[in-house]
Amino acid sequence: MATLQVPAYVPAPSEDAEQLHHAFEGWGTNEQLIIDILAHRKAAQRNLIRKTYHEAYGKDLLRSLDEELSSDFERAVVLFTLDPAERDAYLANQSTKRFTSSNWVIMEIACTRSSHELFNVRKAYQALYQKSLEEDVAHHTKGDYRKLLVPLVSAFRYEGEEVNMSLAKAEAKILRDKISDKEYSDEEVIRIVTTRSRAQLNATLDHYNTAFGNFFNKDLKADGDDEFLKLLRAAVKCLTVPEKYFEKVLRQAINKVGTDEWALTRVVTTRAEVDMVRIKEEYQRKNSATLEKAIARDTSGDYEKMLLALIGAGDI
Amino acid sequence: MATLQVPAYVPAPSEDAEQLHHAFEGWGTNEQLIIDILAHRKAAQRNLIRKTYHEAYGKDLLRSLDEELSSDFERAVVLFTLDPAERDAYLANQSTKRFTSSNWVIMEIACTRSSHELFNVRKAYQALYQKSLEEDVAHHTKGDYRKLLVPLVSAFRYEGEEVNMSLAKAEAKILRDKISDKEYSDEEVIRIVTTRSRAQLNATLDHYNTAFGNFFNKDLKADGDDEFLKLLRAAVKCLTVPEKYFEKVLRQAINKVGTDEWALTRVVTTRAEVDMVRIKEEYQRKNSATLEKAIARDTSGDYEKMLLALIGAGDI
Repeated sequence: MATLQVPAYVPAPSEDAEQLHHAFEGWGTNEQLIIDILAHRKAAQRNLIRKTYHEAYGKDLLRSLDEELSSDFERAVVLFTLDPAERDAYLANQSTKRFTSSNWVIMEIACTRSSHELFNVRKAYQALYQKSLEEDVAHHTKGDYRKLLVPLVSAFRYEGEEVNMSLAKAEAKILRDKISDKEYSDEEVIRIVTTRSRAQLNATLDHYNTAFGNFFNKDLKADGDDEFLKLLRAAVKCLTVPEKYFEKVLRQAINKVGTDEWALTRVVTTRAEVDMVRIKEEYQRKNSATLEKAIARDTSGDYEKMLLALIGAGDI
Repeated sequence: MATLQVPAYVPAPSEDAEQLHHAFEGWGTNEQLIIDILAHRKAAQRNLIRKTYHEAYGKDLLRSLDEELSSDFERAVVLFTLDPAERDAYLANQSTKRFTSSNWVIMEIACTRSSHELFNVRKAYQALYQKSLEEDVAHHTKGDYRKLLVPLVSAFRYEGEEVNMSLAKAEAKILRDKISDKEYSDEEVIRIVTTRSRAQLNATLDHYNTAFGNFFNKDLKADGDDEFLKLLRAAVKCLTVPEKYFEKVLRQAINKVGTDEWALTRVVTTRAEVDMVRIKEEYQRKNSATLEKAIARDTSGDYEKMLLALIGAGDI
């Protein structure tokens, strides 16, 4: 469930665009007005505002935001304003570049979006960069990381609930054998994790737990410090219990000495419209504190206001 | 260019459906009428006929065809009547089954369809089989074949004409080094063949030829009898000169002792609406005989009439 709050009466896109234009004018920028509008509109509404703004003022709204705002606040507003598929394409592209390289963000996008959402990311990626997502990921990665990430971003998983139980049992056994032999990047392990539907994967992992008395992801933890293993574990978590994955990213971002604003912004802007309610519940369960309080303690100013608005803690 | 011939005046779908229903009735089936209708309608028109037939007679047209026709003729009519994406999904599914297993057909579908067509095949596959195409391909294959085929069927290649020449040069060098070391299934070779756009791949292969004085596919031929190598060569051919690939499949199917009707039917039904004109030209160039004559010599009866109609040699 989304934390995004949209007012009962939503102004026409032309009105919103005009208000935003006012917010940029004259001495100083009216940040609160920007938050009031952009942090309280759905993706389709934001797209229309951006379109209308461009028609009225001959300029991309994102460009105006870039000129008027700065730092973490700018990043949060711009990321959230983007259409979800474009935003993911942008994040994925950044993740294949040398200085902002991140196998984690690529994995996160590939494993927590629905099959159609991921396909839309691939379409948006081509439109923005004149290349395919998978060719950049393949070009940017090597060895085990490539073996895992390329099929993850290329997947179009079946999303039905049908489960083949004999297959689940057979594949639980395969996983068990490979993990026992510490063959974590074996092609069978990769195949099962990257191609099976979430329902099928869940059945396999349930059977793993029942048959072998331990969670698959716990067994994977044996060699805890291996970076590839951490990524593989995170992929399984994203595919089966995404709210737990996102809770951990938020917790680590907030508890870090010097908050990791990039991670915090990424999770809040990409999940506010999707499953932030569950992530907040998970956060409170794990930390005995609300995410609102943690964010309010660690951030400040307009950036704080923007994040709080997106997780449903601001006034509407 | 398609060889499919559609009459200037196309009857309403309901009229076509009624005629087909008549063709099935009474003593014997009117095969010529079936050919006159189904071999002379575009995919969208055939879909409408099928829909209308179902509404009027409470039965899938394909089921009626299955009951009334037999053998090679039945297979040609049914395959052609199917919607292209459904047809490919069916052919791919057959290719992952034990007794009809074929890495070649999977490769052919993955490498000769456009990016959007291939994605439509993946959607149709899920709708028909409640599984994803890539999970069945991955489950069905092993080793080098899996390494090649899974990314091929999962690809959503960029289709623009932009080419990065320095990348083309660098990747031509990579291909050359790997081929010299006989590392044909090296992950870099697989990456280049499975993720690059056709335009980029062509630039790379052109540079390969210029810089190293030999065609990439000729160099791959050195170890001619290796089955994986043959498949890799065919994939490159399908991606760059599909008409040459299909000409060879047709030639081999026809020249075989006892024609290979499955291959013949597959190529004619899948290409009649796409690029059969070029394939026929290529066939004539290579064999000093027309495809029409070759088919007329090797096949007979309604099956012959159906194939000839599809390659544009029948009366309309």
